[in-house]
Amino acid sequence: MNGAESLVQTLVDGGVEVCFANPGTSEMHFVAALDRVPGIRCVLCLFEGGVAGAADGYARMAGKPAATLLHCGPGLGNAIANLHNAKRARSPMVNIVGDHATYHVHYDAPLTSDAEGLARPVSGWIKRSTSAEVVGRDAAQAIAASRTAPGNVATLILPADTAWTEGGQVAVVPDIARPTPVPSSAIDAAAKAAREGAGTMLLLGHTALTPENLDLAGAIAAKTGCKLIAQVSNARMARGAGRVAVDRIPYPIDLALGTLKDVKRLVIVGTTAPVAFFAYPGKPSALAPEGCAVSTLATPADDIAGALAALAEAVGAKAKDAQRQAASRPELPKGAMKSEAIAAVLGALLPEGAIVCDESVTTGRGFFPLTRGAPAHDWLQLTGGSIGIGIPLATGAAVAAPDRKVINLEADGSGMYTLQALWTQAREKLNVMTLVWANRSYQILKGELTAVGAQNPGRTALDMLSLDNPALNWVQLANGMGVEAVRVETLEALIDAFKTGLKRTTPFLIEVVL
Amino acid sequence: MNGAESLVQTLVDGGVEVCFANPGTSEMHFVAALDRVPGIRCVLCLFEGGVAGAADGYARMAGKPAATLLHCGPGLGNAIANLHNAKRARSPMVNIVGDHATYHVHYDAPLTSDAEGLARPVSGWIKRSTSAEVVGRDAAQAIAASRTAPGNVATLILPADTAWTEGGQVAVVPDIARPTPVPSSAIDAAAKAAREGAGTMLLLGHTALTPENLDLAGAIAAKTGCKLIAQVSNARMARGAGRVAVDRIPYPIDLALGTLKDVKRLVIVGTTAPVAFFAYPGKPSALAPEGCAVSTLATPADDIAGALAALAEAVGAKAKDAQRQAASRPELPKGAMKSEAIAAVLGALLPEGAIVCDESVTTGRGFFPLTRGAPAHDWLQLTGGSIGIGIPLATGAAVAAPDRKVINLEADGSGMYTLQALWTQAREKLNVMTLVWANRSYQILKGELTAVGAQNPGRTALDMLSLDNPALNWVQLANGMGVEAVRVETLEALIDAFKTGLKRTTPFLIEVVL
Repeated sequence: MNGAESLVQTLVDGGVEVCFANPGTSEMHFVAALDRVPGIRCVLCLFEGGVAGAADGYARMAGKPAATLLHCGPGLGNAIANLHNAKRARSPMVNIVGDHATYHVHYDAPLTSDAEGLARPVSGWIKRSTSAEVVGRDAAQAIAASRTAPGNVATLILPADTAWTEGGQVAVVPDIARPTPVPSSAIDAAAKAAREGAGTMLLLGHTALTPENLDLAGAIAAKTGCKLIAQVSNARMARGAGRVAVDRIPYPIDLALGTLKDVKRLVIVGTTAPVAFFAYPGKPSALAPEGCAVSTLATPADDIAGALAALAEAVGAKAKDAQRQAASRPELPKGAMKSEAIAAVLGALLPEGAIVCDESVTTGRGFFPLTRGAPAHDWLQLTGGSIGIGIPLATGAAVAAPDRKVINLEADGSGMYTLQALWTQAREKLNVMTLVWANRSYQILKGELTAVGAQNPGRTALDMLSLDNPALNWVQLANGMGVEAVRVETLEALIDAFKTGLKRTTPFLIEVVL
Repeated sequence: MNGAESLVQTLVDGGVEVCFANPGTSEMHFVAALDRVPGIRCVLCLFEGGVAGAADGYARMAGKPAATLLHCGPGLGNAIANLHNAKRARSPMVNIVGDHATYHVHYDAPLTSDAEGLARPVSGWIKRSTSAEVVGRDAAQAIAASRTAPGNVATLILPADTAWTEGGQVAVVPDIARPTPVPSSAIDAAAKAAREGAGTMLLLGHTALTPENLDLAGAIAAKTGCKLIAQVSNARMARGAGRVAVDRIPYPIDLALGTLKDVKRLVIVGTTAPVAFFAYPGKPSALAPEGCAVSTLATPADDIAGALAALAEAVGAKAKDAQRQAASRPELPKGAMKSEAIAAVLGALLPEGAIVCDESVTTGRGFFPLTRGAPAHDWLQLTGGSIGIGIPLATGAAVAAPDRKVINLEADGSGMYTLQALWTQAREKLNVMTLVWANRSYQILKGELTAVGAQNPGRTALDMLSLDNPALNWVQLANGMGVEAVRVETLEALIDAFKTGLKRTTPFLIEVVL
């Protein structure tokens, strides 16, 4: 057994079922080993941003890591943006990066690069295997590291000769540390704050947004009168009829500050203190108002479910008493193609069990209210702020949950970063419906230009924010990668196309001209 | 004047005429400054790999740096692959990366990332501005660093508040160090080796491949009987009728070893010792045969022109005596669509002054012999081995040389990494003809799988190397980004399409089905 074969067998034994791959020469022995050692589904992506984003989407829905397979140096570089997003989502991922053979590195061949240097900013764990004998052990450690709370991108760098050399040894995944229990002092402090009722807000993130943990949070709110809110961006949020409905902190700085302005006590549950996405002149970076007492019940690495259960018990709340969202759909809308009308289409037609990947950026800011009462669904967001995750994220989510409809809400500017993942959707016949919001601009930046105080933009500045010259044709782009697509310019056409897409079990894209 | 305005004015004064941009919120003040301070042409790209590759192509043809404008952290990440290629091409580039405001970084907002860590592996110079007052000075230093031999990616990280704060000061570019003169001992040693004639080979790279320096090398070869060869991958190589014709070291390891096997004395001129692109089991990493004396006349940072002139003088060679390539075009071919026939089409039709961007990978290995006698042209290659440079490179080259025809030879697998740059070609109405070699596979990896000794690939492995399910439709992809395109499946159709493309002055793409 060579090192590559020990890697694949260790991954299989360790519960890794899927590998999103874009390999090169230095990874050829790993590719060959995937033939000889059965048990892993290989999903080819045509760009590494697709690999990383798909592995992220898979992890969010499967609750366990996929492997990646990336080419040395710059191949890893192409994955960095979506690895950054995955790191911010706290998604478990076994990120496998090939490299030159150990003895070849010092020749400084053209592709030689500093893999550790590139991996460090986006990885929670990094290791370089030094021989075929230790590849299995290192892979087992990578699996464990990826699954250690709160979830990590674990990057394993494999020189080519560790793959092709004999002596590989399959290893067992070591015990994974349990999430840290929250001390009773934190429970007591949170209970005291919650009992104050109005003026106290629980800020929820990470696994505080599962259905069960939302029930606990909802019960605490029902019992004490405290408020609930979620972070501006969340890896996965359970929503819809039967769930405890929670709003998010808005993205625009003034709305965010307004949402929190009357909060006296902010209790953090499974996330970090709320901050502005960017700095804006004259505006604070921390969103909690001055004088607000900010305390942490549970960090993302803590036992969030245990903390919420203990807090519920401390205040005498029972999960069954949580106020759950009633089933309620808006009427199918008529009239102009505006954000609220689109939200009504989603609210009216979202199917039971839908997985919504939301990279809508500006277009989607009003989607939450009208989708709240739709059948139970999951809502996945751009967690790290690096646009270009939606199409890959939907791809990975669909691989993880083949029985559910994935609906990807995609801004046109963002979609262009990683459009190649549409091809993977076609190749794997994934059940993904993509809606591209074709406003033909970096619309968000037009707002940001004002928000940062850069007044009176001229032609050069506006040209840098406009995608209308030439207009992108998303139907042709999708068709060019084997994905069925239609363009709609009216609400009626959008409704018809959405209904058509719901009947498909293969990829379907709707270009929604705004 | 704020920091952003001082940046733009310093760039303008320092001779930077073009900025390839994909900005975000933290760069909005720089975008606004581009309106208020005239003198820079802004070229928008929809993905940062396009930005970096275009700035590289611009630098190769303009001989001076363009600026980039990249979004913080992951935006830089998306550019890394083509920054790596630019570093290997030794292209000057002022790589401007925004970042959070200085005081915002420690809040760890979602986009917070280690910009220096990401920039280090791909930059020859890095600086982070600390206040508006020093932005101009830092930008001037970045220009100087980028232009210091052999050419560098100079990364300047600009926190948002250094842009929007008043107090910016325009700075003058400091003196740029001249390339290092080569000592007479190196000239003497090279002259001694050259005079040995057969058995001596000059390995040329970087600016040793300009027309003038090729003349000197050709004169030395004509006088002494030594041989000339170029590196496997070169940033820019002057070729065609009237130039000294030089072959390249082949990419496949066995051919590379065979090319050098009889060399007794290898003299390096403007490059580094030849090495295998990858390690292959049982094959050496260094390409020079055992016992071959390898010496360096000039490193890439040295005065290459001066060294060649001194060497020519030492051996009594005169540039006018170089053996120059005669004008000679192959007949237009008939028959099957094979690599040699395609080469004949290129050789027969390449126009005077063409700029050939070559990311043909396997398809293009036979292109050199039949294009040697075409009218004078430049040949630009993938220098760093990170595929996905061709479309951006052609974009930047066309911006730098609007009066010349750019012909981009593009492998389909490689083209998919950065296809977004086609949109920029359409937007800027650039004179680029793209030929996509649609073999619908990572053909190179099929060879590499064997070359590294991974025998008998099975279905999983072959699936990872095949792009035919579904087949990409490059006509639709190009049209979707506003680029005119045709598909050809016969040589006759290719010839017709090529002639059509030559008549266009706007982007034109030919999908060549192989």
